[in-house]
Amino acid sequence: MKYIVDISVEPIGTGTTSISKYVKIVYDVLKSKGIKFYPAPSMTSLELDDITQLGYILKDIDDALASEGIKRIVSFMKIDDRRDKENSIEHKLEVIKT
Amino acid sequence: MKYIVDISVEPIGTGTTSISKYVKIVYDVLKSKGIKFYPAPSMTSLELDDITQLGYILKDIDDALASEGIKRIVSFMKIDDRRDKENSIEHKLEVIKT
Amino acid sequence: MKYIVDISVEPIGTGTTSISKYVKIVYDVLKSKGIKFYPAPSMTSLELDDITQLGYILKDIDDALASEGIKRIVSFMKIDDRRDKENSIEHKLEVIKT
Amino acid sequence: MKYIVDISVEPIGTGTTSISKYVKIVYDVLKSKGIKFYPAPSMTSLELDDITQLGYILKDIDDALASEGIKRIVSFMKIDDRRDKENSIEHKLEVIKT
Repeated sequence: MKYIVDISVEPIGTGTTSISKYVKIVYDVLKSKGIKFYPAPSMTSLELDDITQLGYILKDIDDALASEGIKRIVSFMKIDDRRDKENSIEHKLEVIKT
Repeated sequence: MKYIVDISVEPIGTGTTSISKYVKIVYDVLKSKGIKFYPAPSMTSLELDDITQLGYILKDIDDALASEGIKRIVSFMKIDDRRDKENSIEHKLEVIKT
Repeated sequence: MKYIVDISVEPIGTGTTSISKYVKIVYDVLKSKGIKFYPAPSMTSLELDDITQLGYILKDIDDALASEGIKRIVSFMKIDDRRDKENSIEHKLEVIKT
Repeated sequence: MKYIVDISVEPIGTGTTSISKYVKIVYDVLKSKGIKFYPAPSMTSLELDDITQLGYILKDIDDALASEGIKRIVSFMKIDDRRDKENSIEHKLEVIKT
């Protein structure tokens, strides 16, 4: 059973409107933790086997951004917890083929 | 100047855990209104020239779902309003290339 | 039939971590438009009779923030569209009394 | 340093448009875990000392809903991680007094 988590991380008070540098830091944290993810235009989809990982992932992301001098981070997440059928990024992409 | 809107539409009380049929209805509404969109795994990114379109788009989506018998719809949106630089789905995909 | 919209507006690139000044600007826009709202700790619940107002409300909010020098605004919204029963902020507060 | 988390839990496929019964289950889980929370009209604000608790909280909530027969749960969260100043539900309510 997998959880699909969509996340968007917004650094507050950075003095620049550009966010892409910080998005790359998020990707580096996910890669370092071996988390499977799909970079969509303005949110990132993650695939988690165990939802209790979620807080540790967010902590590592926020700590990495804080080490860049960021003092406030507002994140938004959608968590899809499906228990009757296998859930995966591939499955979701398959069923939404337009 | 374009607005990038990410939307996720959740039908409530349908009696089924499957949502893909309803996601396709959302896509049909967007196509019929000529809205440029990018289907990501669990949210859809739209590109709008004029944010005042947003309420009309949501109304048409919800009306289409209601015509399928859905009596409650909870939607989540992220709106990125950037005023110092051109914003587009292509640009966002370009800058996040991992 | 009323729509309940929860909104959170994040100014990006302001150079300060404080957001409360900007939240007050959002409230002023809502008051000037006669929109009924409930200020919760970190999101604001609005009550709308007509969802097509949504884009105009967001435009006025973002224009007001832009006039304060903000060049990028990321907003998050939850929209509850209930069609089988009257929906209101009072009703929601009533049914969740702990 | 406290994290303020806003959460909205949507049960999918229940066959009823009513959600209040399930919101009460969420409150019971939070109470049983000693989590401080503020019930707003359509989202609930939590105060966490340690963000790594987040995944365990969500797991307990989803497990409690699953024990009620719910087979899919879509949750939305906003996480405010402020590192330069004490963050709390009281502080947030204080600064937004209209």
